[in-house]
Amino acid sequence: MLSEFDLIKRYFQRARPGRADLGIGDDCALLTPTPGHQMAISSDMLVEDRHFFAGADPFMLGHKSLAVNLSDLAAMGARPLAFTLALSLPAADPAWLDGFSRGLFALADAHGCELVGGDTTKGPLNICITVFGELAPGHALRREAARAGDDVWISGTLGDARLALGGYWNEVALAGADHAQAAQRMHMPTPRVALGLALAAQPVAHAALDISDGLVGDLGHILAASRVGATLEVDALPAGPVLARQPPELRRRFTLAGGDDYELCFTAPAAHREAVLEAGHASGTAVTRVGRIEAEPGLRLVDAQGTPLDLQVSGWDHFS
Amino acid sequence: MLSEFDLIKRYFQRARPGRADLGIGDDCALLTPTPGHQMAISSDMLVEDRHFFAGADPFMLGHKSLAVNLSDLAAMGARPLAFTLALSLPAADPAWLDGFSRGLFALADAHGCELVGGDTTKGPLNICITVFGELAPGHALRREAARAGDDVWISGTLGDARLALGGYWNEVALAGADHAQAAQRMHMPTPRVALGLALAAQPVAHAALDISDGLVGDLGHILAASRVGATLEVDALPAGPVLARQPPELRRRFTLAGGDDYELCFTAPAAHREAVLEAGHASGTAVTRVGRIEAEPGLRLVDAQGTPLDLQVSGWDHFS
Repeated sequence: MLSEFDLIKRYFQRARPGRADLGIGDDCALLTPTPGHQMAISSDMLVEDRHFFAGADPFMLGHKSLAVNLSDLAAMGARPLAFTLALSLPAADPAWLDGFSRGLFALADAHGCELVGGDTTKGPLNICITVFGELAPGHALRREAARAGDDVWISGTLGDARLALGGYWNEVALAGADHAQAAQRMHMPTPRVALGLALAAQPVAHAALDISDGLVGDLGHILAASRVGATLEVDALPAGPVLARQPPELRRRFTLAGGDDYELCFTAPAAHREAVLEAGHASGTAVTRVGRIEAEPGLRLVDAQGTPLDLQVSGWDHFS
Repeated sequence: MLSEFDLIKRYFQRARPGRADLGIGDDCALLTPTPGHQMAISSDMLVEDRHFFAGADPFMLGHKSLAVNLSDLAAMGARPLAFTLALSLPAADPAWLDGFSRGLFALADAHGCELVGGDTTKGPLNICITVFGELAPGHALRREAARAGDDVWISGTLGDARLALGGYWNEVALAGADHAQAAQRMHMPTPRVALGLALAAQPVAHAALDISDGLVGDLGHILAASRVGATLEVDALPAGPVLARQPPELRRRFTLAGGDDYELCFTAPAAHREAVLEAGHASGTAVTRVGRIEAEPGLRLVDAQGTPLDLQVSGWDHFS
């Protein structure tokens, strides 16, 4: 039987020296940000049957648990430093722990983000990660920073994760290969860390956030915080490759209000269009201009001809 | 019906300006430690039916959830700055949220520790807090710092929380008033933040940790990390006022291996005895000398005459 301390030692404690002054094994981890920098901090909790299916592949779950947190750092323009992991597990299952820790560390190592501490307990499966990044003061991409006249941009593509969910729910009929491709986006999202850093460096962008609850709801947070409105050209929204082959109605619905996208939605002055494209190029991330910020409150959806569309979509709410 | 965003706004977002550069409401919080200081970071996850009873009083639960995290900062000698809260809730129950948030903020405010972010989701009740403190480099009270010849000290008293649990389990017969008094220690532990700061300031102490899984198991972590042994005078261990009125066998067992104490166990050179007592006095915290660190590995338990005691006790393991 694997004890709590053996479990931590075997799967989560690593010999390599890290960025932190002190990592796993004491009452606290110790971390010193680069002098003159701010720490950016975010927490996400993933619950079985809510954020992932019971029996979900542990490698992909390890990846996704950290990815959704790194996505928050990306949306702020912060460089990842370290994270803590609190795990509630029904049992100490070696196969699960092996897969989960491999998926977690594969992504952590790709971003130089060190596991510095956490907690392990018995209980319903629950994964809570708190991630730490750093950035130069004044460079954070804040939700309140959108200005009338800004372009609205989206990284990567939207909607394939939601399409995959529709496949699991038998809400959408998908060929096996299509479902597998879309499911990859759902289970293994790519946090846009390099793009976020590039957008915050100059800074190129004004406001940013990551799209986790669907574009319409999440963009609404930028509009509310910045006290502005926006017009989105719905058919300009970049659909995932599988969703792009679906009927236009589904494509519109799932790009606008899919959820689980973990792409960045950001605003930037029109004068920065070249710089935004350059940031996308430098970070290997597609960026698509999809609308504009306006002084008039509210979100207006239009087609390619600028004709208003009356689409009923809304964001995700865990308690409604 | 309370939405996720209303819930955060109503119960957890506060108007007062705080220590953080940016608090709740964006992708990340932003926090700048005092120049030249390290950040101390710790996470604890509390699970219903594991760390607290189903139906537990939400005010006390809010207190305890933060207290166990502040206790980790205390054990490192760090000054509390801020924390994140990730909550998984079966439902958005206003009465529960009101009590929980009041208990949480009463303790947070007492320590100037600001809630800067987190996550809220639906699921089995689970409370995950990550706490941030700061300290001057080289002043952390680390587990590996005990040296042969050090005294072993305990803050406050031990065992009343475990005694209360024995009362709930009908393992021990307690008068109602006694049970209520012991239960107060179980549900409302006092994190020894001021003592930790005083011990780290000079520094007065060498090694420290907080006792959450029982003294014997937790002191074992100091001994292992420091590659030393210790002798404890069992009957010198300060028992809680209710436990002190119980039979000696129970008193020994629950002071040695109770759990949920959240007192500090620390070591300090014999030359610092006066300074330790002064740190206790200055922080309003009783401190009791209970043994000594020795070069010989292992933990030896003795009575007041120095006669070895053969007591079978061990620490708490969530997976055994």
